[in-house]
Amino acid sequence: MKQKTKVAVLGATGFTGEKLVEILIDHPAVELTYLSSHSFDSVNYASIFPKLQKKIDIVCHKLNIDDAIAGSDFFFLALPHTVSMQVAPKLIAAGKKVIDLSADYRLHDTKVYEKFYHAQHLDPQNLPKAIYGLPELFGPKIKQADLVANPGCYASSIILALAPLAKQNIAGSHCIIDAKSSISGAGKKLSPNKHYMHVNNNLWAYKPFLHQHLPEIDQTLNSLTSQQLSFTFVPHVVGVESGIYSTIYLKINSKITQKQIAESYQQYAKENPFIRYLKPLPQLKDVVGTNFCDIGFSLETESNNLVVVSCIDNLIKGAAGMAVQNMNIMADLPQTEGLI
Amino acid sequence: MKQKTKVAVLGATGFTGEKLVEILIDHPAVELTYLSSHSFDSVNYASIFPKLQKKIDIVCHKLNIDDAIAGSDFFFLALPHTVSMQVAPKLIAAGKKVIDLSADYRLHDTKVYEKFYHAQHLDPQNLPKAIYGLPELFGPKIKQADLVANPGCYASSIILALAPLAKQNIAGSHCIIDAKSSISGAGKKLSPNKHYMHVNNNLWAYKPFLHQHLPEIDQTLNSLTSQQLSFTFVPHVVGVESGIYSTIYLKINSKITQKQIAESYQQYAKENPFIRYLKPLPQLKDVVGTNFCDIGFSLETESNNLVVVSCIDNLIKGAAGMAVQNMNIMADLPQTEGLI
Amino acid sequence: MKQKTKVAVLGATGFTGEKLVEILIDHPAVELTYLSSHSFDSVNYASIFPKLQKKIDIVCHKLNIDDAIAGSDFFFLALPHTVSMQVAPKLIAAGKKVIDLSADYRLHDTKVYEKFYHAQHLDPQNLPKAIYGLPELFGPKIKQADLVANPGCYASSIILALAPLAKQNIAGSHCIIDAKSSISGAGKKLSPNKHYMHVNNNLWAYKPFLHQHLPEIDQTLNSLTSQQLSFTFVPHVVGVESGIYSTIYLKINSKITQKQIAESYQQYAKENPFIRYLKPLPQLKDVVGTNFCDIGFSLETESNNLVVVSCIDNLIKGAAGMAVQNMNIMADLPQTEGLI
Amino acid sequence: MKQKTKVAVLGATGFTGEKLVEILIDHPAVELTYLSSHSFDSVNYASIFPKLQKKIDIVCHKLNIDDAIAGSDFFFLALPHTVSMQVAPKLIAAGKKVIDLSADYRLHDTKVYEKFYHAQHLDPQNLPKAIYGLPELFGPKIKQADLVANPGCYASSIILALAPLAKQNIAGSHCIIDAKSSISGAGKKLSPNKHYMHVNNNLWAYKPFLHQHLPEIDQTLNSLTSQQLSFTFVPHVVGVESGIYSTIYLKINSKITQKQIAESYQQYAKENPFIRYLKPLPQLKDVVGTNFCDIGFSLETESNNLVVVSCIDNLIKGAAGMAVQNMNIMADLPQTEGLI
Repeated sequence: MKQKTKVAVLGATGFTGEKLVEILIDHPAVELTYLSSHSFDSVNYASIFPKLQKKIDIVCHKLNIDDAIAGSDFFFLALPHTVSMQVAPKLIAAGKKVIDLSADYRLHDTKVYEKFYHAQHLDPQNLPKAIYGLPELFGPKIKQADLVANPGCYASSIILALAPLAKQNIAGSHCIIDAKSSISGAGKKLSPNKHYMHVNNNLWAYKPFLHQHLPEIDQTLNSLTSQQLSFTFVPHVVGVESGIYSTIYLKINSKITQKQIAESYQQYAKENPFIRYLKPLPQLKDVVGTNFCDIGFSLETESNNLVVVSCIDNLIKGAAGMAVQNMNIMADLPQTEGLI
Repeated sequence: MKQKTKVAVLGATGFTGEKLVEILIDHPAVELTYLSSHSFDSVNYASIFPKLQKKIDIVCHKLNIDDAIAGSDFFFLALPHTVSMQVAPKLIAAGKKVIDLSADYRLHDTKVYEKFYHAQHLDPQNLPKAIYGLPELFGPKIKQADLVANPGCYASSIILALAPLAKQNIAGSHCIIDAKSSISGAGKKLSPNKHYMHVNNNLWAYKPFLHQHLPEIDQTLNSLTSQQLSFTFVPHVVGVESGIYSTIYLKINSKITQKQIAESYQQYAKENPFIRYLKPLPQLKDVVGTNFCDIGFSLETESNNLVVVSCIDNLIKGAAGMAVQNMNIMADLPQTEGLI
Repeated sequence: MKQKTKVAVLGATGFTGEKLVEILIDHPAVELTYLSSHSFDSVNYASIFPKLQKKIDIVCHKLNIDDAIAGSDFFFLALPHTVSMQVAPKLIAAGKKVIDLSADYRLHDTKVYEKFYHAQHLDPQNLPKAIYGLPELFGPKIKQADLVANPGCYASSIILALAPLAKQNIAGSHCIIDAKSSISGAGKKLSPNKHYMHVNNNLWAYKPFLHQHLPEIDQTLNSLTSQQLSFTFVPHVVGVESGIYSTIYLKINSKITQKQIAESYQQYAKENPFIRYLKPLPQLKDVVGTNFCDIGFSLETESNNLVVVSCIDNLIKGAAGMAVQNMNIMADLPQTEGLI
Repeated sequence: MKQKTKVAVLGATGFTGEKLVEILIDHPAVELTYLSSHSFDSVNYASIFPKLQKKIDIVCHKLNIDDAIAGSDFFFLALPHTVSMQVAPKLIAAGKKVIDLSADYRLHDTKVYEKFYHAQHLDPQNLPKAIYGLPELFGPKIKQADLVANPGCYASSIILALAPLAKQNIAGSHCIIDAKSSISGAGKKLSPNKHYMHVNNNLWAYKPFLHQHLPEIDQTLNSLTSQQLSFTFVPHVVGVESGIYSTIYLKINSKITQKQIAESYQQYAKENPFIRYLKPLPQLKDVVGTNFCDIGFSLETESNNLVVVSCIDNLIKGAAGMAVQNMNIMADLPQTEGLI
């Protein structure tokens, strides 16, 4: 029997860290060896999350990097932006495999990072090693990687929706992306706009044109085509508990038929275990609690206006599930291990 | 003291009818004289809606048109499409004022009506008399009207958002409209996709390019400009209790500045008591329970990409409140009477 | 025309203060003259609550007691416990009418106050002047009062449910009270258990036997009867936006019939404009947004087990609406003014 | 390797059937061989529930009992009351194992069944064979059974909460049970009170003293003690998506200490993998999506008033999960197989 991978989750008590732990507990090829938290030190993890009682028995520590390194081979960094790039270099230097769920290693260009994250990049040396962790696009590179930059939640839903069309069918288009997300994407840190009384039954747009996931969408999709794609991206928060639903509008630039687009998505879904192509259009609830990305489209043939819709669970396919999918690939396991 | 207007609500037990009754109970210039329902006959209205006990004491009947005409001067038709146009002619023939909340009198062209509503138009004679009931645009005509076609809920939120720009600033543009609505807009009739377990925490797009409110948006906004506006409209249902939130994307066709757009909206809000211009962007909850339409925008100056956001309570400014605002105008009352 | 009452709301930006302002804006006999806030100084109130734009134009200040006294005759204290009793003495000394929505003046016995609120009482001199502000029980005393202690939200729902039975029908009983409340009752102050992700779809019991509203329930209901009533009170938070729903279980101590109890409630509802007696049992949504208390009951005749159910909007009949009802009585207005 | 059990789910498209299928798909010792539905015939199951695409590939049929029997060894009946007892006899006659999730085989006394379910019992012959499927109480009998009557959802949460105290600590008590449930317990059949607009943010009590789960609570708990327990049971629907939260009030009849009760629950949790004892009190969200029953209590020592709180996911531990736990026992698998 194959030995289990020894896995550490740093930042294990945020929403993403919690979801990682939940998935990894049930993962047949993983042994959870180290959990760290900024807020809890030497506390039984299940006493912080009573829902995990009888499912996990492990203590959560303030991060001690030497202890973490000593006992684990594989690291998930569910840390805030700017913190990951202070921790990752030590792990890489120690020969560990790292999947960073922050934005620190997603953008090739440190200037773009600094513009969108308002912080200097502290680890430009390791940046070129980082592979953007979207298995549907970069599986072979991820397999070889020591450092994977797990995509942003909005970015995942959007890139996955457009990728199969990017090379040919939509080359050169302007894509208008209207995305709707659960507030869980904004994390646990308290703020008035996360109060139940504010979120419930509410809906609002924010950061129009300026959301920090825009540059990774741009970087990734434009790496697939020579004819520049451009983007308008407006995220919204809606009073639902989980998920991101992205509606993407574009004019296709040629005589591409409904049938051709359908075939692209069918082929895409066939090749990728977590992509589902749904007719006519998906609904959010079907992906909640799963690592699937559901995609559908509608074409107005007389006008060449195309609408592509995708949805994911923002904490799973948009974060923790995608990260475990990346780990599976890096650890030479089936992509779906522990995820379906 | 001015005599109260004698008002009938036909279709008083649907969501819109119920909201009409709630508003009219508190309206200082109205006497509710007749309520009809398809589902209840000779039943005390407050026994159907216990929340109205001690607020209203009136019996609800199956519609008897002669009784209705005998006791009322002003009629709100909260009836299904195709039913309104069977009732309205009799009321108009009897010299009554009519506000129809169905779609039957909204579209000038019966062919378009037939295409989108899958039914033959039964009252083409009265159609030319019908005024589209958007007071912010057509106040003077509404004042003279005997028959007002109250706008669709999506249409209200979208037309109100774009109207002040339509003449000049966005002339010739293609407008992409991503609208999010409460399920209440779909009415009370039971169906699996209105079950709590389906709607709660869910979100889905439907009828892309084909929603029946599209032709009235097109007809109305293009009546304001000679340079044809075109539209992509994709409505969504979201698991919130009330409201419509429309996010509208367009490229402006000239060197219009942020300042000019802001001034258009400021002026618009100044002239119209139910329009509020908010910086930066509105949120749904601020309009729930009110007759306001909140509007905001964001311009990406380097690209001329404009996002306009508007929100309304779909049952109030999107239906019953708008109808009462129309009644106020027709009855020579202040627009805001009984509504603020 | 009668002159409007000049009203100040101290603590105007908490949930209760906000609701008070919303009600008072529409109150025909009130002029809002002063708003204070701990968090905002010299800020236009409608810029804090954009939903009130075009409805109110008044500046909110850090409390300056002299300014407040100079311009207002009537004071609502929507202040935290222990703060009210520092402010109220000055207002009373200045001859103002005061309605305190905190707990500071509710309990006759300062020792009980200190036990349940973990703070010394700072104004024992004014305590005997304070009238418990439950108009359905103490209307005549409220009319004469200068200082009214507005009841707690749970207490309102429970006392109103049992009061008509307390004198005779349930004398000597042990009452088991299972109450369910919206999180809004816990206020705006941020805490992890108010995060949307914690509250939505959740439900939990808290403070069994020990909730601080218990002593005012005990004090008030036992003032109506010589045969001691006793109580078990367990409050719960449920993931709904508004309201308190109290289910009260007791064994009736004599051969009281279903009919007698029904008659008690019918009579009670007849005498009190905000009490509604519903058959068989009320539902929460019917009272949301209103000042009504809906009450129903069910008696198992063979066992003499009685269940009484009551519900209110916790921020209206459980706080702001009740306070305005008290103000109406103190100002010699109809109880229902500005509230129905 | 052990052969997989061939399992049929009859009534596979209701909420309970759907949840059964979801659990069984992932169950390592199960092969799903037959799915029937009243509403769908010869339809791919994943096309009815798109969320299961790529997880299941099986056709759902109108029930053909011979086909069902031919291919399956183990039957879950997720059928309406009165339908199960028409199907079960044939399955038992064919030597199959049956777990009935309806109420048809729960009550020993057909008169009680007829009183609470308003229907004549059609299979009194098999009734004595039926074992009440609560593994925490009746594991050894379930192991031997051919026919298991899976408990009602409310009954599960309540019996599990009181069982460890029933023999001694609460003998002779009157138990007041205030239970709060998601509307999912009421099934998929459309009705106005399941419309999203009715349920969301609502809460109501129903069937006080008369709910049909009362007799199985009574029958089961009183089978554990000679000193008659009596019950008042009032269920409520609350606007949450999943779960039942039961708050149970009783006076303990002797000098039992807090410590003794705590020890009872600790021991109980130690012996039963799906029972968790939480201090101080559990919250609903911790059990949603799991087969756990979380239990907590609080004792007011001076009065001997005890509150016991339990919560479960009504569709899992309250239905489908419990049924699979029963199957595991009947099939000689670990209780937790496929469930943790």
